[in-house]
Amino acid sequence: MVKFKKNAVGRNIPTEINGKPVVLFMGVGKYKPTGRKHAPRIASCADYPLDGNKLIPDLKTALIKAGLKDGMTISTHHHFRNGDLVANQIFDIAAELGIKDLVWYPSASFQCQERLTAYLEDGTLNRIEGSMNGPLGRFTTQGKMKGTAVLRSHGGRYQAVQDGEVQIDIAVIAAPTADPFGNANGVTGSSACGLLGFALADSQYADKVIVVTDNLIPFPCIPWQIQGNYVDYVVEMDKIGIPERIISGTTQITKSPDRLYLAELTAKFCDEAGIIRDGFSFQAGAGGTSLSIGNYFGDIMRERGIKARFARAGSNQYLVKMFEEGLVEYILDGQTFDLEGIRSMRENPNHVDTSPFTSYNYHGKGNFAGMVDVVILGATEVDVNFNGNVVTHSDGYLLHGIGGWQNCLFSKTVVMPIPLFRDRIPVIRDEVTTITGPGELIDVIVTERGIAINPRRTDLLEAVKDSDLPIKTIHELKEEAERICGKPQPIEFEDRVVAAIKWVDGTVIDVVWQVKE
Amino acid sequence: MVKFKKNAVGRNIPTEINGKPVVLFMGVGKYKPTGRKHAPRIASCADYPLDGNKLIPDLKTALIKAGLKDGMTISTHHHFRNGDLVANQIFDIAAELGIKDLVWYPSASFQCQERLTAYLEDGTLNRIEGSMNGPLGRFTTQGKMKGTAVLRSHGGRYQAVQDGEVQIDIAVIAAPTADPFGNANGVTGSSACGLLGFALADSQYADKVIVVTDNLIPFPCIPWQIQGNYVDYVVEMDKIGIPERIISGTTQITKSPDRLYLAELTAKFCDEAGIIRDGFSFQAGAGGTSLSIGNYFGDIMRERGIKARFARAGSNQYLVKMFEEGLVEYILDGQTFDLEGIRSMRENPNHVDTSPFTSYNYHGKGNFAGMVDVVILGATEVDVNFNGNVVTHSDGYLLHGIGGWQNCLFSKTVVMPIPLFRDRIPVIRDEVTTITGPGELIDVIVTERGIAINPRRTDLLEAVKDSDLPIKTIHELKEEAERICGKPQPIEFEDRVVAAIKWVDGTVIDVVWQVKE
Repeated sequence: MVKFKKNAVGRNIPTEINGKPVVLFMGVGKYKPTGRKHAPRIASCADYPLDGNKLIPDLKTALIKAGLKDGMTISTHHHFRNGDLVANQIFDIAAELGIKDLVWYPSASFQCQERLTAYLEDGTLNRIEGSMNGPLGRFTTQGKMKGTAVLRSHGGRYQAVQDGEVQIDIAVIAAPTADPFGNANGVTGSSACGLLGFALADSQYADKVIVVTDNLIPFPCIPWQIQGNYVDYVVEMDKIGIPERIISGTTQITKSPDRLYLAELTAKFCDEAGIIRDGFSFQAGAGGTSLSIGNYFGDIMRERGIKARFARAGSNQYLVKMFEEGLVEYILDGQTFDLEGIRSMRENPNHVDTSPFTSYNYHGKGNFAGMVDVVILGATEVDVNFNGNVVTHSDGYLLHGIGGWQNCLFSKTVVMPIPLFRDRIPVIRDEVTTITGPGELIDVIVTERGIAINPRRTDLLEAVKDSDLPIKTIHELKEEAERICGKPQPIEFEDRVVAAIKWVDGTVIDVVWQVKE
Repeated sequence: MVKFKKNAVGRNIPTEINGKPVVLFMGVGKYKPTGRKHAPRIASCADYPLDGNKLIPDLKTALIKAGLKDGMTISTHHHFRNGDLVANQIFDIAAELGIKDLVWYPSASFQCQERLTAYLEDGTLNRIEGSMNGPLGRFTTQGKMKGTAVLRSHGGRYQAVQDGEVQIDIAVIAAPTADPFGNANGVTGSSACGLLGFALADSQYADKVIVVTDNLIPFPCIPWQIQGNYVDYVVEMDKIGIPERIISGTTQITKSPDRLYLAELTAKFCDEAGIIRDGFSFQAGAGGTSLSIGNYFGDIMRERGIKARFARAGSNQYLVKMFEEGLVEYILDGQTFDLEGIRSMRENPNHVDTSPFTSYNYHGKGNFAGMVDVVILGATEVDVNFNGNVVTHSDGYLLHGIGGWQNCLFSKTVVMPIPLFRDRIPVIRDEVTTITGPGELIDVIVTERGIAINPRRTDLLEAVKDSDLPIKTIHELKEEAERICGKPQPIEFEDRVVAAIKWVDGTVIDVVWQVKE
């Protein structure tokens, strides 16, 4: 029988998940790793073609050469978001070969991979360890996956691979451009997606690495965002992604008056708190509200004649415009969200591709996240202790990945513009359904009916005390939400853990329970 | 008593060097590593400043914080060549602190570090493991170093660190530009040296990494040739290098008629052999003759209206000119030799900085060296079996490092333009003093009195058989040299090994003996 123990945020966590012992979340910065990084096998050039040509006729042959067998961990990446054409093929081949019990380790999964539920049902796949957006998450919450899902942040995914918690047997890296040696990038080609940073850990640490491309060019493929020296095989195929689905559908500025107000209020808060000053840095997401906030930042900078030293991105047309206008000196980009982002990265050396290693890996000698002055993040729920949830909805269903959200919590100031309620369900609650980030790292909640500042941030409370901003306590906001919507009903769960939520250091901060349907 | 065994090229090699067991050279591609890469300790962001500021007041404090103690291995790099101002300071500090028995692991040493002999004499330093140019090599050959020197190629240095053969305790990376997080590059700043590729392995695998700069800029330092996520401490100092000595003194086209003839003959050979064709690739060094050969290649390309896909470099003004003229599509650069090389790398994204990892590491999944169509290399001696020597002179003195020479031998065709004799000492001999590279990888010897093709390269012999090139056998060339200069006298050695010459796979291909003076 699996035992449960309470972790530092009071959640009941099984002591074992997927047959491996669990380290409980101990609090921010409390767990200190003592081991050494995963040590990949030493290769020899003698075992690789001297002329550098690693081309293999097709993906099936490459997977067989890579030694595909039962129980292996296979990784893919979400650079093409909902336009990915490669991941499904891998598991079609595995099923055809009668392989069982695979672990799929995507950097994220999307709706386009929904049909992999068939392989979760027939035993080809044991489980998914990776962010799940939409249908696969719902499937998981219904208790239909054999193994337990494990969700990690972008930085946590790098950490897990680096630390050897997850040993990838075969990484399949879909690349918009590659050469026969395996050098690859995402800035050119018809499937251009910007960068390939999510595959960096896989290239460095996986036992076998397969690069799949629909734009094979002669050596050298410049830039080499993925270095061929880590690659075993290269496969050319007709089409690896659907360009129109590679671009995120969410990157339009909101037209909703409510959300515009939220955006304006957030920007105003940052301004009053003294965050927007010459040489500052920021990260705003690619959702409609966040994009508007970025634009408001731009207005303030223009008015004052100041500029930002850098913006962390999620790049998009609005940020690129500010960048090309000179309001932002550098874009440090982890993921391009539209064609303008891709173009800018291709053309401008100050629009730099980053990776989960540089930006987010908590088990490095520092990372970029802590250097960002202000980050704007969303949440499905926040509780009165400022704990945040981004993975489940208030009905208990796991419908979103963690992305870089946990990692960004380490920025100097974390601001969350969220509506007080959604579909008449309060967003601010006594307890969040799933703790994805601990309250000690969440500083400011901005709602359309007031702003709550984490009492730990006495500096921020002090900075805005004479402003005309609608500052309230988090309890006041919660009560206001409940006055309007009523107190939310508790969810009924089955007695089964379906997913673990890892913290950035590899400890388990919460679990997701099967929902009673 | 140390035992000796003959390796695959017939050299007597001790079975133990510096207390560690030796793997004998087994032939090209014969030794297959079975282990795993060196696994550095897992770090945690919790132990590094959250705001990314790793500045330490001075180098001494940084070394003490890094835990400097007896017997450690300390690494530095030769990006500033004979203008380096940092390495000496490290060992001055160590001596001042009374530290003993250090191993210095430079990527190369130069005349400017000659005074470190004092620390080899007083026991601060046990030995140097790294290429030695000039005085330190002479000191070593005189038997004055306590430990045994170990020389590695650029690729072999990466391999040794990656494989854990050399575990660097503290790496000190001198960087022309850096930010307080430790991101660093060599393309900007008053000490600009182009790139920092020789320090890549050190940053990835050393226990502690110190970046030293004389041009500290606010985060982010773009490009980050060295990633701050690997860096522990950053030190700012007044001056890390003497710019006029950073630039190599050898990068002028030869004016000597003999050497110009050699260059022209070499280019003509490559042309007749069908190597110079549209889309080909080449690597020529930065010596006077090599530069001339590059220029002749340019003439041929211009005349034919063809271009090279890429040139591996050692970049210099002549290559940059060809590049900017469009004769060369990409420069894959391991080391910039003059200001034009630095400017070009800074300005042109197709002038790419490479590293010993991408270009030369033999224990990777391939490397770039094998993809180069023709490489032009020098040698101090070549023997009738086409074995080459680059480290010792015919008088037995160790005066040169291996550099990338061994690694380049894996290129498709290796051509060595060398004079038949130097100072009336024959260059082609029955046996080279020190085998640095095995004859099976050396294809063509071009001398002013004829060209010898390795009999293994029947394709080349066939390709030029109807040309008017002065093709001879290597024996004919040797005899001609001896006719003119007389047969060289054997050197007298003491019964002591002073240095080991590693092959690219970490095995020992030869040793250097103490010279009887």
